[in-house]
Amino acid sequence: MKVFRFCLALMGLAALPMAALADIADQVTDFTLDNGLQVVVIEDHRAPVVVHMLWYRAGSADETAGVSGVAHFLEHLLFKQTKTLAAGEFSRVVAENGGSDNAFTSTDFTAYFQRVAADRLDLMMRMEADRMMNLDLSEEDILTEREVIIEERNQRVENSPGALFREQSNAALYLNHRYGVPVIGWRHEMEKLSLSDALAFYRRYYAPNNAVLVVAGDVLPDEVREMAVKNYGSLPANPDLHPRARPQEPPQIAARRLTYRDERVAQPYITRNYLAPERDPGDQSTAAALSLLADILGGGQTSVLTQKLQFETSTAVYSAAFYDGLSLDDSNFGFVVVPSADVTLQAAEDALDQALAGFLETGVDLAQLDRIKTQFAASEIYARDNVQGLANSYGAALTSGLELADIHAWPAAVQAVSPEDIMSAAKELLNEERSVTGWLMKPEEEAE
Amino acid sequence: MKVFRFCLALMGLAALPMAALADIADQVTDFTLDNGLQVVVIEDHRAPVVVHMLWYRAGSADETAGVSGVAHFLEHLLFKQTKTLAAGEFSRVVAENGGSDNAFTSTDFTAYFQRVAADRLDLMMRMEADRMMNLDLSEEDILTEREVIIEERNQRVENSPGALFREQSNAALYLNHRYGVPVIGWRHEMEKLSLSDALAFYRRYYAPNNAVLVVAGDVLPDEVREMAVKNYGSLPANPDLHPRARPQEPPQIAARRLTYRDERVAQPYITRNYLAPERDPGDQSTAAALSLLADILGGGQTSVLTQKLQFETSTAVYSAAFYDGLSLDDSNFGFVVVPSADVTLQAAEDALDQALAGFLETGVDLAQLDRIKTQFAASEIYARDNVQGLANSYGAALTSGLELADIHAWPAAVQAVSPEDIMSAAKELLNEERSVTGWLMKPEEEAE
Repeated sequence: MKVFRFCLALMGLAALPMAALADIADQVTDFTLDNGLQVVVIEDHRAPVVVHMLWYRAGSADETAGVSGVAHFLEHLLFKQTKTLAAGEFSRVVAENGGSDNAFTSTDFTAYFQRVAADRLDLMMRMEADRMMNLDLSEEDILTEREVIIEERNQRVENSPGALFREQSNAALYLNHRYGVPVIGWRHEMEKLSLSDALAFYRRYYAPNNAVLVVAGDVLPDEVREMAVKNYGSLPANPDLHPRARPQEPPQIAARRLTYRDERVAQPYITRNYLAPERDPGDQSTAAALSLLADILGGGQTSVLTQKLQFETSTAVYSAAFYDGLSLDDSNFGFVVVPSADVTLQAAEDALDQALAGFLETGVDLAQLDRIKTQFAASEIYARDNVQGLANSYGAALTSGLELADIHAWPAAVQAVSPEDIMSAAKELLNEERSVTGWLMKPEEEAE
Repeated sequence: MKVFRFCLALMGLAALPMAALADIADQVTDFTLDNGLQVVVIEDHRAPVVVHMLWYRAGSADETAGVSGVAHFLEHLLFKQTKTLAAGEFSRVVAENGGSDNAFTSTDFTAYFQRVAADRLDLMMRMEADRMMNLDLSEEDILTEREVIIEERNQRVENSPGALFREQSNAALYLNHRYGVPVIGWRHEMEKLSLSDALAFYRRYYAPNNAVLVVAGDVLPDEVREMAVKNYGSLPANPDLHPRARPQEPPQIAARRLTYRDERVAQPYITRNYLAPERDPGDQSTAAALSLLADILGGGQTSVLTQKLQFETSTAVYSAAFYDGLSLDDSNFGFVVVPSADVTLQAAEDALDQALAGFLETGVDLAQLDRIKTQFAASEIYARDNVQGLANSYGAALTSGLELADIHAWPAAVQAVSPEDIMSAAKELLNEERSVTGWLMKPEEEAE
């Protein structure tokens, strides 16, 4: 029942509608409880509904080496028994109250959410606060739920050549950082995940001073505060919580390539991934330029790659660029090119390189940039309509190293990007030494 | 003053003379103290000299993520002040007694040794036992010695394109295991190594139940036992020591390539590294076959690569194969080909692939295999002459996951390898999906 978003996140398809947040700052209230729980309230009184999300600043990249997958495993286990709720009772109560609930894990966060009628908020808080502290796991839970996550890996990764390919490519992109390890975990490590592994992660990271509560919908800040104090206020902070510091990348000085061959590949393609800077607090301008660059190069019908590789030369049947700047540490900027029939992967790669080199020479098309900025501004407006999307945006940003001020500054940061900023970011980015080029193909295919 | 062996170990040039140990088992006595300290005595009464080595089952691959280099850093720091010795006093006392001392760090172990007149053994034990427990480090020590190891990295790695290339290639070979992290450390992590990082490693791993004492030379087992009990016997075991289990590799399913370009490259070359099984306790037959395979393919003038690439075609000016089976976890089997003038790296790589494919078809030359086995047996005999080499062999093996019985079984395991064993090991090994191919070249050179 849990949505598992890492595939989307890795592919950059889950770009959050951060754009809409510039002018809605006055809908947003934030405060922090004495135990360190950060609370963000987003008011939207159009319908008597509320989204209650609890975000932990703990994702797969916060795991200890050797227990990959434990962040996601624990996410599953949080639906088991607590000292006051039976296994499965949480979701049953939500459903009985007409709501829906879910959870997801990424490299930088784990989040739990419910969408219910606004008058059920207190109940949600009570149950969510309960499982932050009172999880009561048994060895039996470990055995059964471990089978579930392994089966999840089977379905999402082992059965998908593209997912296996991404996993190996991602491992090659990161030389030192845990972003190279899959969120769902390496299978051989998942098979050994134990009760003590899960509890160690739980005790280390599940605490009010490592969480962000986002409540969005038909609520008033004062009532949320009162309710939050009542339900979450008495939970003890973890006094041993350390600042979030993961192993960082060394200088990447050697261009990497990899080839994954699999019988099940229906359509071969190439990818290119570059290590790329992420949005940092108070310093989002490079990431803003890269976001626009991704749209310029591979964001739709008028993009550089689509024009060059699909319309002008018929080299590719599909091409795209993606970048997700929402990341605690260095992110990636990627390309995919799916060649047309009879076009080799080498020819597709050469065409990509030529298109990029051509772009670096000719620069940004000003009309295209204007169009993209306008679309971006429009998406800000539309995003306000989706209260759950807004809650998601705030939670993800606040658990990925950003502050509220950064969220609100982002739309202006994007509009402020100049063509020169984009070219400068592109030149810095497109350094093959910090890249991995991947070929996905059938076993029998010749490389050239 | 410390010899730093990781470069040698990675290149396989420091192949230890394990061969000589089959028939000398009766020179070897081993016992374990009550506190868990394993002691190995190797008698050699030809000269009144003794080698005293203390080996810890703790190397760079036992480090926590983010503090790379701390194992080697601590090795340096062990020459600082203890509660009873001033900084530098240890080595001064050794020298004043006519001896020499040194230390080295690898992925799987850290070792300290002295070579002195046999009647100074008690003094060596007293000082070595002292620094196992009584290190008395200051912030000042950290600051000064950190500069030393960073300078060591400058000299050994930053100033050497080949070393930088190996580092990046090694990081690409291992997707999950800490063997992908350099023994000396990533520079950006070395710069942050702190007193608490060093002490954490020291307290976790420096204990009698995590160490092997090797005493070799003009000594009798009983006197060593008595002296060891006296000096080491009262040191407390670490009750929290866990079995040694590091994160292992996931299935490697995508062949990797990398190119490192550097102005300082005088001679471009290619390398190919395959993930390879290591010697395991009670199971050394595959590693024995791989050891012979390395000699057959690239171990000198009559090897396959030298014949094909140098004598028959003049493609290469140098070629070699290397494999070091002494490793706690999966090791690597590597090739290097240095092309002749006017031969491209692509042509050199193609020639390597052709030579390997040809070998897989034609199989082992029986006369060559006999010659190599005879040389191997001869090296067993010669190795006995070098008491320090013997001590080294035992210490390295016993801290790399092997037992005494494995050391003594190794020469016979090598002699028992059949041509079929070698071909079977070669076919299993030479799987491009578990390989990294590296090109080292000047910036301006064209790849093809």
